[in-house]
Amino acid sequence: MKRMLCLAVLVAVVAGGVAFGETGPYRHVVIFQFKEGTSAEKVEEIERAFGELPKQIEAIRSFEWGRNVSPEGLNPQLTHCFTLTFDSQGAIDKGYLHHPAHEAFVALIKPHLEKAVVVDYVAQPPAK
Amino acid sequence: MKRMLCLAVLVAVVAGGVAFGETGPYRHVVIFQFKEGTSAEKVEEIERAFGELPKQIEAIRSFEWGRNVSPEGLNPQLTHCFTLTFDSQGAIDKGYLHHPAHEAFVALIKPHLEKAVVVDYVAQPPAK
Repeated sequence: MKRMLCLAVLVAVVAGGVAFGETGPYRHVVIFQFKEGTSAEKVEEIERAFGELPKQIEAIRSFEWGRNVSPEGLNPQLTHCFTLTFDSQGAIDKGYLHHPAHEAFVALIKPHLEKAVVVDYVAQPPAK
Repeated sequence: MKRMLCLAVLVAVVAGGVAFGETGPYRHVVIFQFKEGTSAEKVEEIERAFGELPKQIEAIRSFEWGRNVSPEGLNPQLTHCFTLTFDSQGAIDKGYLHHPAHEAFVALIKPHLEKAVVVDYVAQPPAK
């Protein structure tokens, strides 16, 4: 019975998302617009390079990304979104932003970047 | 032993984030800049109203939000980020965007909004 309950909780977490407390995970949301004329190959290289960072940088707790598929089409020029999770603001500041692997990634992407939108937040839950 | 293993998996999922497959969850990322002069009370009213939507709109699978605390300070005018999860693009399109509760929220926020950045993505995992 306990095993079933535990499994049910696990399924709920995976399917429905984690309910975060007042001091929830620290999210780092990065959205890119590439310069006009950036080749598909270069974009794919950048996607791959960003996706390699979690293996190189210990402070990254989780990483997900995708191409913008919003049906609203409010910001079609913003084509990529990456969400990284850290333990805290201190963790991103000390363990990520100045990490050599992150700096190398920034150097790779910079010449091809028209715009980057970056916001961080400590995940709060919805209203109870 | 099985219970311990189950607990360990649960802890890993909560702490480290969910590892998403090729058809991962559908994320809807909404970032706001409020008009200059928008009162703190109005901003709090909007935060609360957005946070009420998961109770009113069945299609929302999970919801989290926070104020922008990025130490990089690249977009300080973008003060709020909300991440909603849906089952699919069809689910957000049919079950959320035109839902009366969402439309009422849009009507509430619109007069106070300087800018909204909205991107959706199907969550992909990092490189293996």
